[in-house]
Order: sequence, then structure tokens, then C-alpha cells
Amino acid sequence: MTRGKRFCILFIIMAIHLQSWNECPAKKSILDFVADVTDEGSQTFVSPHDRIAVFDNDGTLWAEKPAYFQLLFALERVKALAPENPGWKTKQPFKAVLEGDMKSLAAAGDRGIIELVMESTSGMTTDEFSKIVSDWMTQAKHPRFHRPYTDLAYQPMLELLDYLRMNGFKTYIVSGGGIEFMRVWMEGVYGIPPEQVIGSSIITRFEIRDNTPVLLRQPMLDFHDDKAGKPVAINKFIGRRPIFAFGNSDGDLQMLQWTASGKGQRFMGIIHHTDAEREWDYDRYSMVGRLDKALDEANSRGWTIVDMKKDWKRIFVFELR
Amino acid sequence: MTRGKRFCILFIIMAIHLQSWNECPAKKSILDFVADVTDEGSQTFVSPHDRIAVFDNDGTLWAEKPAYFQLLFALERVKALAPENPGWKTKQPFKAVLEGDMKSLAAAGDRGIIELVMESTSGMTTDEFSKIVSDWMTQAKHPRFHRPYTDLAYQPMLELLDYLRMNGFKTYIVSGGGIEFMRVWMEGVYGIPPEQVIGSSIITRFEIRDNTPVLLRQPMLDFHDDKAGKPVAINKFIGRRPIFAFGNSDGDLQMLQWTASGKGQRFMGIIHHTDAEREWDYDRYSMVGRLDKALDEANSRGWTIVDMKKDWKRIFVFELR
Repeated sequence: MTRGKRFCILFIIMAIHLQSWNECPAKKSILDFVADVTDEGSQTFVSPHDRIAVFDNDGTLWAEKPAYFQLLFALERVKALAPENPGWKTKQPFKAVLEGDMKSLAAAGDRGIIELVMESTSGMTTDEFSKIVSDWMTQAKHPRFHRPYTDLAYQPMLELLDYLRMNGFKTYIVSGGGIEFMRVWMEGVYGIPPEQVIGSSIITRFEIRDNTPVLLRQPMLDFHDDKAGKPVAINKFIGRRPIFAFGNSDGDLQMLQWTASGKGQRFMGIIHHTDAEREWDYDRYSMVGRLDKALDEANSRGWTIVDMKKDWKRIFVFELR
Repeated sequence: MTRGKRFCILFIIMAIHLQSWNECPAKKSILDFVADVTDEGSQTFVSPHDRIAVFDNDGTLWAEKPAYFQLLFALERVKALAPENPGWKTKQPFKAVLEGDMKSLAAAGDRGIIELVMESTSGMTTDEFSKIVSDWMTQAKHPRFHRPYTDLAYQPMLELLDYLRMNGFKTYIVSGGGIEFMRVWMEGVYGIPPEQVIGSSIITRFEIRDNTPVLLRQPMLDFHDDKAGKPVAINKFIGRRPIFAFGNSDGDLQMLQWTASGKGQRFMGIIHHTDAEREWDYDRYSMVGRLDKALDEANSRGWTIVDMKKDWKRIFVFELR
């Protein structure tokens, strides 16, 4: 193919894809990377087999304020089940939920959420849990935007997922969120099937109940998929090193380092929340989604940093409706 | 499509595929099942998205005698490392290895193997481990057939894997074997990529060594993927219920039950080792690969049972060379 032809095709692709991205260095770095690894003649070519892309979820593919959405889900469950669990009145993080003490809750972090979700949804089968999540997703509304939580997925990132898949990438979620919580709605919203969703998990137990095999949720943590847990989970679930990774907080640093340390072309991206008006503005001092060490490392190593305010024409999927 | 045309196409596919299978009820049940779930017009149609097929490995896709091949790998490691580990002389299952006491070893089962592999390969990185397995696979020879272990994959089953994939199935391994042991060679032998290989695992730890991120193998069990663990692992890794499952021992019973209990068309298959001459002949009283309860359940529920001696024209891949 001639240089002119290649430029022309690239131009058409640019015009069609990533529509919600402004022309900016972040967009250019994505397009350049994809062009490099898909150019069969070049030394930078990567076979489709190895085009593995991993994405954090909270704060990377959808919003995470005022608190992780899964935490808001768990709060409702805990409140609903409180009468049957009088012990929760004096036990953290349940006490904080029942007293509306959001500060203590935020301090409990991912593990606090996992504990709330575990305790408030254990004893039921995996199918029963999916049903509860699915129902909640249909009727719950975000406190600021008064819309279903899935409306707060980021339109530019959905376009990026599509763009990567069109270019032969396999897209994965690698999130601290609960694996069974996410799988219920991610295929519909992100086009990512359950087997490509990796997250934190609790222990489940196989049992035959009335002649029917079921998997029962146990109140025990199986795996916390955050920080140094992310490369561990990537290795366990995928068994290959990604060439493309996107995150937004210090919880994603090790996943980005793991991706960066492979051979050949690599893409490491970070969403920087800079838009107080359209979304939220936070980084180093935020309880939820703190971006501090990873921001320093991204700057010093030349990783791609998306400035949400400058780089995105629109933020949420609902803005296109 | 007319009935005649469909029959004609089916006939051509039958003629090309599953060549190493004799015309038998097992082969017919596979062809019928695949025809049913891929027939778009019919009520039995299953969309490609849900065509998930799971396979046990040892005794289902390759041989498992005189002992699990991974155990034979671990024995060599233990012997090689014994001088540096004097404590092994008095500690089971290491003592059994060093004394050549195969009976005590067989009694240690999967967990014994995992312990041997864990202890003899911990402290190293996942990359170092892959290299050791890869080297062993290249040079080690099976004691009876004097060939590389991968030559003892079952030719009829490779044809079945291909046949399913050609019909839109996603093929997975769900084995008690070590996940990192299997991933090294399975893509080359079975055409199954690492992310579709599920197995037993040990804990790994992320660490930065001389500025390079590594995953270090720890001498701690993470998950034992056998018996009731198999449906648990299927749910965790795949997040959807298979419609097709193949095993050969009681360790596969729960995976078969889990597959059988979903809605719509289901296929459950069992390899029965009946050929003492070409392979081995064992079931209810075998230490390795015991097939007892699962055989009863297969008989009573009408699952497909492959009689290796009668149903397979050839057994091993090397017979075709």
C-alpha cells in the first residue's frame, strides 16, 4: 500500500471513530499505537492473537462519584436487610451504612464494599444474586444525574472499546469491583462478554439442592482484584500480558507497570478527572479513585493522560440520546 | 434450505470430520447435538455466544497412565532439587518420590501433585516456570511409548475440538492440572489459547525486581480445580454455563451435572478407558482417573459414553504420522 493510500484510509477511520474525542495528543497516541500494531509490514506489528487490552472499570469506563456504584447498591441491600441482622448496628462497616456515615464508609475502601456485598448477598445462589443486581440496575437512579447508573458510562471510552475490537483486539475488564456484579450488565453496556470480565470475587460453593445443582455465595473473600492483585489476576485469567491498558487511579498502577514491562509496542493510558462541571474534578486527595503515584509515573514515563475536560467532546452515553 | 440439501451438507461434514471415530452411537450423539444447536430455524438452536464446551484434560484429551504426566514432571524436579532440600527425605509426599514409592504417591492424589509442583517450583517467576515446563515437554519421554507426552493426545478428541470450533463453539479446558503447567503447550497441541485453559493454581505475588515487574510463585495453594471445584471455576472464569462437557472420571461428575442442569439442549460425554492393548483399561478401581459414580450417573441419565476400544479407529496423534 502506498503512503498516500494508507494516510487516506487512516483519515477515514479517524473521521468515523472516536467521534467524542477532540483532536488531542491522547487521541493521536491511541490512533498511532493501533496503526503501529496492525501494520502487517512493519516491525511493530502484533498478531491479533496477542492484541489484549485491559480496562479498569470505576472511573475509567463509568463514573465513580459520589461513591463506587456497587457500594450504593450494597447500601440499599444492607438497609433492607438490617431488621433481620440486629448485630449490624454496632459492627463496621454496617454501622456506618445504617447511620449514613459516608466518611467512614469511604475509608473502608474496596474491602469494605466487598464485605458489605458479601454479607448482604451471601447464602443465596449466583443466579439469585444476578437477578437482584439486574433489577437494581433497571430501577436505581444516580443521585446527581437522576438516571440509571449504566447511563453514566463514558461515551468516548465505549468508542475506544469498539475501535480496538474492530482492530482485532480482545477487550477485558480488570476491576476491583465484584465479578458477579459486573457481569450482569457489562455485555449490554460495553459489549464485553462475561468471560472477559475479571474482578474481585467471593467464595462460592457447589451444592445439590432439591436435585438441582446450585452455586451458593459464601461470606468469604476469594480474591481482591486491586493494585498488585491486578497483574496476578491478569496472569491467572488471561495467561498472557496485555499490550494495552487503561486505568484512572493508583489501584491501576501495577496493571500499567505489568503491561509496560512486556516486549514490543505498549500503550498505557490514564483518565484524569478534570471536569468539575460535566463530571467531577479529583486526583491526589480523593478518597475514591485517588490518582497520585500513578499520575507521577505516567508523567515521568510518558504514558498517555486523558484530560477529560479538554479531550472529550462529550462525557456520558446519555448525552448522545 | 431444503431437507435434501441439509442432509447432503451434513453428510459431507460427517465424511470430513471425526475421521478417527468409528460409526457408533457416541459419534452419532455428537453429530446430532451439533446439528440441533446450529440449526437456525429450529427450537433447539443455540446462538454462537452460548456455545461453550468444556473438557477435562487428563484421561479425556490425553493419557494419564502410569500417572498424571504433571506428576512425572514434578518427580524429576523433586529428584533434581533433593540435594538442596534435605528435609524432603522424611516428609511426604517427597519421601515417596525419593524412595520411588509410587503407591503412596498415587494415594496423595491431585493435592499431592500440586504440593510437589508448588514446593519444587516456588520462589521462581512465572516466566521461569514456563521455560522449565516447555523444556521438559521437548525432551521428556513417556515410559511406555517412548515419545514426547504431547504425542499421547487423543486424535479423535483433537478432531472433536476442531469440529466444535468449526461450528461456532468456544472450547475450554477445565482440569485439575496446574493452570500454568498446561498453558505452556495446550495452544500448540489442542488449539486452545491460555485464556481458555482453567486449572488448579498456586498463589503468585507481584513484585518489582531490579526495576522489572515479575510474578513470583508462592508455595501456597490458590485453588484446586477438581470435583465440586470445577463448576465453581467455570462460573468464576467463564461466567456462563457450558452446553457441552466431556470428562472421564468421578472428578468430572459435578462439571457434568452443572452442564446438564441448564436449560435447552445439553451434551454430556464420558471417555471410558476400555482398551488395554492400545491404551489402558480401567474404571471403578483405578487410583488414577477413577470412574465409578460418574459411570453410574452417565448410564442412568443417558449421557454419552465413549467406548475407547470400539469407538476409536486410532487413539493417539502419533498414529497418524
